[in-house]
Parts: sequence; structure tokens; C-alpha cells
Amino acid sequence: MRMIIGDTYEDMSRLAMQHLLGHMFQQQGRVNLSITGGTTPIRMYGMLAPEMAGKGYFNHVHFYNFDEIPHKVKQQEGITMTDLRKLFYGPAGIPEGQIHILNEQTYGGYDAMIERDGGLDAMLLGVGWDGHFCGNLPNTTRFSDRTVMVPCDAVVKGKIRKYFEEEEDVPDTYLTMGPASVMAARHLILIASGVKKQEVMKKFVYGDVDAMVPVSILKMHPHVTVIMDKDAAGLL
Amino acid sequence: MRMIIGDTYEDMSRLAMQHLLGHMFQQQGRVNLSITGGTTPIRMYGMLAPEMAGKGYFNHVHFYNFDEIPHKVKQQEGITMTDLRKLFYGPAGIPEGQIHILNEQTYGGYDAMIERDGGLDAMLLGVGWDGHFCGNLPNTTRFSDRTVMVPCDAVVKGKIRKYFEEEEDVPDTYLTMGPASVMAARHLILIASGVKKQEVMKKFVYGDVDAMVPVSILKMHPHVTVIMDKDAAGLL
Amino acid sequence: MRMIIGDTYEDMSRLAMQHLLGHMFQQQGRVNLSITGGTTPIRMYGMLAPEMAGKGYFNHVHFYNFDEIPHKVKQQEGITMTDLRKLFYGPAGIPEGQIHILNEQTYGGYDAMIERDGGLDAMLLGVGWDGHFCGNLPNTTRFSDRTVMVPCDAVVKGKIRKYFEEEEDVPDTYLTMGPASVMAARHLILIASGVKKQEVMKKFVYGDVDAMVPVSILKMHPHVTVIMDKDAAGLL
Amino acid sequence: MRMIIGDTYEDMSRLAMQHLLGHMFQQQGRVNLSITGGTTPIRMYGMLAPEMAGKGYFNHVHFYNFDEIPHKVKQQEGITMTDLRKLFYGPAGIPEGQIHILNEQTYGGYDAMIERDGGLDAMLLGVGWDGHFCGNLPNTTRFSDRTVMVPCDAVVKGKIRKYFEEEEDVPDTYLTMGPASVMAARHLILIASGVKKQEVMKKFVYGDVDAMVPVSILKMHPHVTVIMDKDAAGLL
Repeated sequence: MRMIIGDTYEDMSRLAMQHLLGHMFQQQGRVNLSITGGTTPIRMYGMLAPEMAGKGYFNHVHFYNFDEIPHKVKQQEGITMTDLRKLFYGPAGIPEGQIHILNEQTYGGYDAMIERDGGLDAMLLGVGWDGHFCGNLPNTTRFSDRTVMVPCDAVVKGKIRKYFEEEEDVPDTYLTMGPASVMAARHLILIASGVKKQEVMKKFVYGDVDAMVPVSILKMHPHVTVIMDKDAAGLL
Repeated sequence: MRMIIGDTYEDMSRLAMQHLLGHMFQQQGRVNLSITGGTTPIRMYGMLAPEMAGKGYFNHVHFYNFDEIPHKVKQQEGITMTDLRKLFYGPAGIPEGQIHILNEQTYGGYDAMIERDGGLDAMLLGVGWDGHFCGNLPNTTRFSDRTVMVPCDAVVKGKIRKYFEEEEDVPDTYLTMGPASVMAARHLILIASGVKKQEVMKKFVYGDVDAMVPVSILKMHPHVTVIMDKDAAGLL
Repeated sequence: MRMIIGDTYEDMSRLAMQHLLGHMFQQQGRVNLSITGGTTPIRMYGMLAPEMAGKGYFNHVHFYNFDEIPHKVKQQEGITMTDLRKLFYGPAGIPEGQIHILNEQTYGGYDAMIERDGGLDAMLLGVGWDGHFCGNLPNTTRFSDRTVMVPCDAVVKGKIRKYFEEEEDVPDTYLTMGPASVMAARHLILIASGVKKQEVMKKFVYGDVDAMVPVSILKMHPHVTVIMDKDAAGLL
Repeated sequence: MRMIIGDTYEDMSRLAMQHLLGHMFQQQGRVNLSITGGTTPIRMYGMLAPEMAGKGYFNHVHFYNFDEIPHKVKQQEGITMTDLRKLFYGPAGIPEGQIHILNEQTYGGYDAMIERDGGLDAMLLGVGWDGHFCGNLPNTTRFSDRTVMVPCDAVVKGKIRKYFEEEEDVPDTYLTMGPASVMAARHLILIASGVKKQEVMKKFVYGDVDAMVPVSILKMHPHVTVIMDKDAAGLL
């Protein structure tokens, strides 16, 4: 594990961007990246988008979302894809042909498709205060799960309700790459920012593998880089 | 995970040898391998040694033992190194300078030394019917352990007694690369032979990560190859 | 450059087979190989075919021929593909879907196809006494050429006539991956056997890059392995 | 070859920095870089130095100079090292232990040392209007040369005189990694800026390998990235 601590959220964002650009520039052929939505990477995408917009030399870089919370009723793209389009795919001008979508229609063949495409070169992942990564919350997936559909119990529904305008639109299932699919990527980049992440980062760094802290499995990956700001690293 | 099933023990041995030779031939510079003793690889070493003996073009290949059971009283190399010398280093004529020894004197700096040497390109591992790999038996190490000294409780002493002529020579501690050190290798090759390994291979392939089956953590490695004979694969 | 000298043609053949198997076993995903026809690899294919025939664990390995001499009149596959099918694809039972054919119809898009497929992991190449490799004979291609159609002058026609039963079937053009396409592979394996290759191997090892000895450019590749028998290495 | 054209010198500099940072961040273990002095990278080092100064997470990155013009009389470091210290090593605070120096004392074992250190992960190279790279000027080294001492003829003395205050201090020989040593790196990054480089970049991109344009050999490398500004790319 390589640990990189930036002084500020701004530093963490720039370091994460440099890691992603490094992957895009370093491979000779196609590069496959899986990237996270959410609040932690907002500034990073703000930096990355102008680096990429209108630049033909990124046409070998492909993107894959690693989880999705679909709408139950509304006929529109799910929460993750909507977020990624707004934060990154849109401003960066990523062509549709370089965006590969995980949703209810594609999840069954998603791992096989990624493998045919050459596997993931890198994944950029956030972590929740509860130890979740992607849609792998405590008590949902097993470490050996690959890409799966997960039933939303009351706890999960409580967590995702905020994303929906109407109660009836909250889905009964969501999709996520499971821990085994994530561990199959060649490089993992875990980002964390803010004091709210201090406890989980302490568990990640000092604790053992623990099913109740799903992210803990990622410390076993042979090529994982953790990028934090000082707030997130406050208990290390 | 890639699974390769050979018809016989002979086939499994040849396939494992081809995997190791592949690593030796494919890297341009230094190659670091960690290899297993025990009974499963006996035939493989019997094939490999004549391929290597007296061949200067293997002088870039370095070997590291991943565990050791020292003598408590006798002043001689431990059980693993004695075994590896007899099975492989001796017949293959590996020069001393290419053999790096884990023992009571070196274990504290072993991980750092391997990292300085460029990391392990591949590890060849066996598996016990009880799910152990290297010296990681149930109830000994934690998944996040790196190279450690492990106290021998009564259970462990019972298992290792067979290696010693005198009771007083049975040690109170042994050394092993822990799961985290093993997972840091770039490629894992797991070999299994015989019906006695059917149950543990079934758990490995179909089961989840489980601290009571230590080998189960290895299925999370992004580049693991499992080579079995049909007997070991009988329940798959 | 790594140089490996086997005592005999048999040794050279086994070493070359081990190198190819190493590539097939070591990559986690799809493996792309480009391999040579001709007389030098005959024994190697004799060893390799039974290792592969009927083995499902090679279904990730794809093959590309790197040159072709088409028939001018007869409606049948060219000299190289006919040779490779007889020597290797047939006996090894390689499925059609894993064989990618360079011919008059495909040569224009061949480099782009290989790049889309992930690039070549390794190429196995022979060398002629006149310094040619693939269809890159002196005075035919330039070092910077990629896959091209080459006109057959009188010299070339003289060399290829032996492959054809009827004079009218000798073609006016042939196809070859040019030096730039070959150098783009990640690993080059050059094999040479017999005293007839002594002079060219001496030039290859000790000489400078020289357009009249096309193979000399390959010594500039960052990852090239030369496998010879003692006869071919007689002047080194 | 991957070609990346930035609008301005500033863009080219930032893109080159991102490539170098990508190499520093992406490898798990030690990273070996060889970097260029001169005027083209001045702005790039101006951006890179503050990214690295005081950051412990770059302590795995090692630097190697690829040429040197020594003083004949004065007892001080040569022109290249003096330049690199001022432009980069100093402002970036690179510890002495991570700087490996090519000079009259070390050149004989330089290639072997780099190989022992794991080989070069990347080289950042400039190009002269006359087609030179490193100290490989027309009529000095051969493509197959590794690190060598080169005699300074009248032409070379004319070119390097500007670096010396006193005529008597102009050396009779200089040191350079030859083309074969450069081609052995795993990734080449070639930078060019300004209209003065238009002609040579045109020859590089469209021309064949040509001993009178030494840089032309680099187009044969399987993993070369060319980063230019629009001025340098004006004839493409």
C-alpha cells in the first residue's frame, strides 16, 4: 500500500487527478478506468475536465461506472450515471462510445465485458464513514461477490432515499461491482477527505480484514494507493 | 482467477514448471520468485532442476523461502530451507547469491528487503487440507499480517513434531510471510494434488473469504492461477 | 537483449516452446501472439501442439500470422497460413475464432486491428541467412514501414518460386508486417538454428543497424530474446 | 507512437510533467527516470519542482542523467549535472541518494548499474534541430552503442564551447548513453517546442531511420510518446 497525504482537499484532488492522468498517458493502447461519483471527487473532476475537454489524445480511454441506483418508476438513467455525467462526462466531453454503463440491463454480463475489454487498469474509489465502497455496504455483499444486484433492505432504503424526489421511485434493488470484481482491477486508488472519514481510515490502515468494514478488503490488493487530505488522515 | 486442471499429478507438475519458467524467461531484468517446499511440488522440482542446472541464462532469477520452522536446539538450517535445498536448490545448482533466506535472524527485515529487491514476481504456493498456506494456519496469523514470528501452540506443535528427531528440538515459534506479504506478490500460483485436497479446493473456489480457511483470502488476488490435478478438482 | 544458447536443435525448440507457454500462462486476460512458419520452428510446434490440443485453458490465446505469400491464380490460402495450419493450428486444435489472418483482403487494416485487440504480447520470429525477418528482405521494406504489400521483383520471385507448383501461380506481390509493426510488439523472440545462420547471427549480435541486414533493427527492441542452438551461435 | 500536441509551450510543459508524475505514482516499487537538461524543459521543471519539494511520497523515485560534458581543467561537476541541479534537483529537493551520476568515473559501469537497479522506467528526452538526442550527434555514436565516451571533434567543440568560460576548459571527450541504452528504457517521452524544431519533427514523424538524424531511431521504440507545442508541430 502506498499512502499519500495532501495538506488540503485541493491537494488531494490534484494528486488524485495526477494519478488518473498517469494511467491515461502511460498505457500504449486502450485504457479502462472505473471512477466514482459522490462528493469527494467533485474538485478533482473540476480540475480533470478542462484537461480532457476537446483533446483527441484521450480517445483511447474508456470509463465504467461501478455501481448504480436505478429509479423504480421514472424512465431515466440512475443516480450514479446522472451524477457522473454532470460532474465529469459532460464537462470533459467524453464521447458516448467511451462510456460503458452498469445498469439493470447490463449487470449480468458486466464482468465478462470488462474482461473482454482487457480488464480495468485502475479504479478510483471513495469510502463511506460506515466502511462501504461502491455499493458494498456492511451486510449486503460478500467479499467473493462479483457484479451483483442487491436487494434494498430498510437500512439501505434509508440511506438512498435522499437521492429521490418521490418515495415510490426508491428502488427495491441496486447494482454494484462486488469486492471480487473490484480486487480484479490492476490498480486501486482510494480517496478520502474530511474529518468524517478519520475513523474509517484508521480502521482501514490499522485494522484487519473485517466483513463489517467492507473497504478493509482493499488493503489486501497488491497495488493500492490511498490519497487523503490531512483531515481524513487525522488519526493515523 | 484462472483455473487449470491437469489430468494427473505428472500433468499438474509440468504445468506448474511451465508457469515458473514463464516468469523466469519473460522478465527482462531480475526475477524474484518465492517457492514452496512440501510433497506437492516434488515431481515439479524433479522436472525443473535439470532445466536449470548449469544454465547461465538463469542468473537473474532469485529465490525466497516464505516460511521456516527452525530447530530449537540443533545448530542447523530450518525444516523449509533444508527441504528446498534437497528438492531444488541443490539439484538445480542455484548459486548461494540467488537464494535469500527467511529465518529468525532475517524475518524482521524480510518484507523491506523484498521490496528493495523489486518485489516478488511470482509465488508458488501449496495448500493444506486445513486451509493453511505458508505458515498461515487457522488461528495463527491475521489476514493483514506481514512477515511474522508465530508462537507454536499445542496444535501447531502437534503438526510440526514429525519434522524433528528429538522432542527438545521442536521450536516454540516459527516464521512465515503473512497473508498481506503474500498478497503483495504480482502473481500467485496455487498448486493442489490428490483427493485429500478436494474439500479445501471446493471451499477455495466456491466459498467466501473465511479466517478459518486462510487460503480463501488468495482468491481475492487480481492475478492468481490455480493448478490442480483431477483428484484435487474432484468436487468442482 | 537476452541471449539463450541451447546445446541442440531439440534444446532450442524446447526453450522456444517454454517462452511461448510463459506468455500464454502469465497474462491474466487475452494474449496475442504472432508466430512464424518455416523450418526452424518445426520441432517446437511438434512439442507445443500436444500441450495445447483439447485444453480449454488456452482459449484466451490469439494468433496472428505476420506475412503471407498469396497464390496468384489458385483460389486457396497462401503459403504462410497453409504452413501454419499444417505445422501448428491443426495439430494444436486452435479454434478458428482465435486465428487472425493477414492476407490481401486484411492487410490494410491489420495494424489497426491488432492495436484494437490490445497489441501483440509476443512475436516468435525466424531469421534468414540473408538477414530477412518476416517478409522484410533487403531492398524491400523500410524500417519505418508498417504492414504493407510488397512488389515481387526478380530476386524475390526467385526465392519464393519453390513454394508454387505452377509458374503462373507465383504472385506479383506479397504481404508482411514491416519493421515498425514488429517493433511495436511487447516482446520479441528470435530463433535460429544451424550453421547456415552463423554469419547472420554474428552480424546481428556484433554489427550495427544496417538496412541491408533487416533483422539488425530488432536488436534495438527493449525486450528481445534470442534463442539459438550451438550451431547458429558458432561465431559468437 | 503516441503524439500529443499542446497549444502552447505552457501546455507542452504541463503535459510532460503529467507524464513524469504518472510514472512516479503508478509503479508500486522503485521508479527509475532519466531526464534531460537544456532549455525545452525549463518550464516543466518549474511546475514539477513545487509538486515534489518536501514530499516524502517521492522517496522511491531515482534519477539518472543520460549525458555529461565534463570540464577539462576545472574541478567541478559537468555541464549537464550543473544544469539539472539548478533546474530541478535543487528546487525539488531531491536527496543525493536518489541521484545517480553519469560522469568520467562512472560511465564504464553505468548500463550495468541501471540494469541492476531494475532498468529505466522512463526517459524524458529533448531533440536538437540537427537530430541529436542525448549526446548522440550525427557522426558521433552508432545506433548499437551503449553508454560511451565520445571524442570531441572540431564540430562538437564548436557546439559545446558556449558552455565554458575558458577555452582551455573545453573537454576532448564527453559522455552519453548511446542509442541502444536509450532504447532499453521501458518508455520514452520526447519533447519539442518552437519553430526551430519543425524540420526535425517532420523528419522524425515522416522519415525513415537515418544515421544522419539520430533521433529517428527512437520512432522504432514500442512505447514512445512525443509531446510538442503547435510551433514544433507546424509541419505535421
